[in-house]
Amino acid sequence: MTAKNNEPTKKLSTESYKGVRDFYPEDMFIQKYIFERMRKAVEKFGYVEYGASVLEPAELYRAKSGEEIVNEQTYMFTDRGDREVTLRPEMTPTVARMVAAKRRELSFPLRWYSIPNLFRYEKPQRGRTREHWQLNVDLFGSDNIEADVEVISVAHEVMHSFGATNNDFRIEISHRDATGEALRKILKQVNINDLNEIQERISQLTKLIDRKKKMSSEDFRTKSVQLSGDPDFNDHFFALAKESEDIIKIINNLKNKGINNVSYNPEITRGFDYYTGMVFEVFDTNPENRRALFGGGRYDDLTSLFGGEKIPAVGFGAGDVTMRDFMETHGLLPTYKPTAKLYIAIQDESCRESAEQLATTLRAGGTDVALDISHKKLGDQIKIADRQKIPFVTAIGTEEVKSAAYRVKNLADGTEKILKAAEIADYLKTQSAL
Amino acid sequence: MTAKNNEPTKKLSTESYKGVRDFYPEDMFIQKYIFERMRKAVEKFGYVEYGASVLEPAELYRAKSGEEIVNEQTYMFTDRGDREVTLRPEMTPTVARMVAAKRRELSFPLRWYSIPNLFRYEKPQRGRTREHWQLNVDLFGSDNIEADVEVISVAHEVMHSFGATNNDFRIEISHRDATGEALRKILKQVNINDLNEIQERISQLTKLIDRKKKMSSEDFRTKSVQLSGDPDFNDHFFALAKESEDIIKIINNLKNKGINNVSYNPEITRGFDYYTGMVFEVFDTNPENRRALFGGGRYDDLTSLFGGEKIPAVGFGAGDVTMRDFMETHGLLPTYKPTAKLYIAIQDESCRESAEQLATTLRAGGTDVALDISHKKLGDQIKIADRQKIPFVTAIGTEEVKSAAYRVKNLADGTEKILKAAEIADYLKTQSAL
Repeated sequence: MTAKNNEPTKKLSTESYKGVRDFYPEDMFIQKYIFERMRKAVEKFGYVEYGASVLEPAELYRAKSGEEIVNEQTYMFTDRGDREVTLRPEMTPTVARMVAAKRRELSFPLRWYSIPNLFRYEKPQRGRTREHWQLNVDLFGSDNIEADVEVISVAHEVMHSFGATNNDFRIEISHRDATGEALRKILKQVNINDLNEIQERISQLTKLIDRKKKMSSEDFRTKSVQLSGDPDFNDHFFALAKESEDIIKIINNLKNKGINNVSYNPEITRGFDYYTGMVFEVFDTNPENRRALFGGGRYDDLTSLFGGEKIPAVGFGAGDVTMRDFMETHGLLPTYKPTAKLYIAIQDESCRESAEQLATTLRAGGTDVALDISHKKLGDQIKIADRQKIPFVTAIGTEEVKSAAYRVKNLADGTEKILKAAEIADYLKTQSAL
Repeated sequence: MTAKNNEPTKKLSTESYKGVRDFYPEDMFIQKYIFERMRKAVEKFGYVEYGASVLEPAELYRAKSGEEIVNEQTYMFTDRGDREVTLRPEMTPTVARMVAAKRRELSFPLRWYSIPNLFRYEKPQRGRTREHWQLNVDLFGSDNIEADVEVISVAHEVMHSFGATNNDFRIEISHRDATGEALRKILKQVNINDLNEIQERISQLTKLIDRKKKMSSEDFRTKSVQLSGDPDFNDHFFALAKESEDIIKIINNLKNKGINNVSYNPEITRGFDYYTGMVFEVFDTNPENRRALFGGGRYDDLTSLFGGEKIPAVGFGAGDVTMRDFMETHGLLPTYKPTAKLYIAIQDESCRESAEQLATTLRAGGTDVALDISHKKLGDQIKIADRQKIPFVTAIGTEEVKSAAYRVKNLADGTEKILKAAEIADYLKTQSAL
């Protein structure tokens, strides 16, 4: 980008990298709205925010070998110092690493959240981008049912914070023990007895059940019969995967709190190997959107990979792309508004200094103000304000400078009000709240 | 991370990737404080936030070949689809790309800001990390002096928003035209007449002057004499690099606005090739911290690399690491406070449901509350609250359930107050404001 010779040899493309998003101010506004609502919802329960770099040593994910996500979908490269680096595909390994690193200094139970960006090398399509942001909520240091209940309550609160009601979504929960127990029984019935073999098939079947909604029932039947050796796998699994004591308690406790859109579904398994107990997913009730919005569960063993005693943990991750789609479908997206409520236009260049003074005064009082520097005709200045969605305009001319009274115009309805400088802030606040 | 077999073959490291930072909640608190103040300061002037992915096509930076930053300091890799990708080392090419892409739809002048993370493969040291965040403020579509003045005013406001006064920092400005003119005269005097040669030497000398503060005066002398062919380069440059009309106007206009800590300094050149006009840097007045805190300038030609007419632009970037160091030196860092002001302890397990109800009521009223799930002794529960810096505790026992009156204890000074549920929120607000 040598600016010296104004004729670059080749025109540069204005396209972003494939599969990621540019956030123009109107998109960023929605993104910030989503993040802000997420923050408010989880902070209600005393969660505190942490953060980390998107770069992690590749080693952190390699221990999880065999996962599709690591082998085929991870951004990995070697840095100039020959270190293998990964663009994090999920946040849980990072948060487990951070908690394990300071286990002696931290006070448990620990309520932590973060909204990191995550990378996956996927084929871009609706609801799937190569980079997305994800609210991660985790509760470390408690293996009590209250912790499971709290984390689901937080997920429920996040949905409500977007304006969703219990009719707009449902929460389905299950338990890895119930799934494992049922699968073990099925494998025993078809005489698979080798322990490693059983463990491997349980892992494969658990992931297959997790993907069931994304495949045809024929495809699922073929694969499940092949993996389990049971020709009636589906019926047997449903008959054997019983609601455990824990699940019943969790559901009842949630219902006591008014969270009545929750039910048991043995088909909820979650793909990751690290889940050890309760797992849950949140679904849109709109029949046209069958994908899970997000989910989570208990993962008590993960921190032990870093040495030391294991720290029980339960949490969930909710992505911005699916959340935005959900909000769009349900008419819950906010309307773009810049923070500046007033555009100060300049009618007469000799009045610029007065206009600047008015801007300075208003800013000092906490009002965000855009001041014209276009030197265009008044009508064109007003057009700029209007196109930038700044709702009020005042034009400064010799009259205004003399009288120190300003005609503040509402661009939406054309109404005007003449105000002293000291009255403008309150007027804009009242009007913007309407 | 197979959680199935609880004995991993090798203990995973808890270290982050080299040269990047983990943000534990207390660090994240400061990071968020810095970002929030930056946002408030720039939004006062009507700037709106945009965002983009940290991944950019490598092509975007390659046009700027010859720059040390691209050749040696950039994170670059090839993705699984054979695309060359860069982790952005700076935001200006991205914002120029985005503005160029929608030049027909956008309404100019455009006031945009962003707080992206940026990557450079540098040797980690104080003030230098491989990943840092940077406030980027840009004003597109005006080549007027008012635009230069506004952008410097915004930088000034950012400093003040952190609690800094005009005595804590100074702003030094110069102009690429003045620099170029002076260098051209020097080169002419030593009989360098080839236009390409002159242009190349001006570019090299401009960068050398930018790095002057970071090298010994002997080293600067040797290199500047070598590049310019002038044995008295330094004296001649100072004598020839005169304050231009524009610079005088900018400085006077800023002084009229109370920004009196600004002065002309011909040694301000900024490293990047793309600057075309006014350039400025902000310095700590503390003699122990000689590095520039941040800077910026005018770059009118950058968007033309994407085709179409050029869009004049002026802006600056202010990094979080140097800003945090500055704030620390000047005692301006805030004290960590979680958003939750109350920890509800449970004295008697039979009272858990009542405690949960109290928590739900308070949360619905907008108070962030952490509820105990540790099942520990009361004293230990209070310790958790204290270590997590939650300032107030109330313990729920049979007495509290019966009376519906809660003893709210201030952990800092030990004072207690007995309150009804409906009174708690206001009490916490008043107390927290003290």
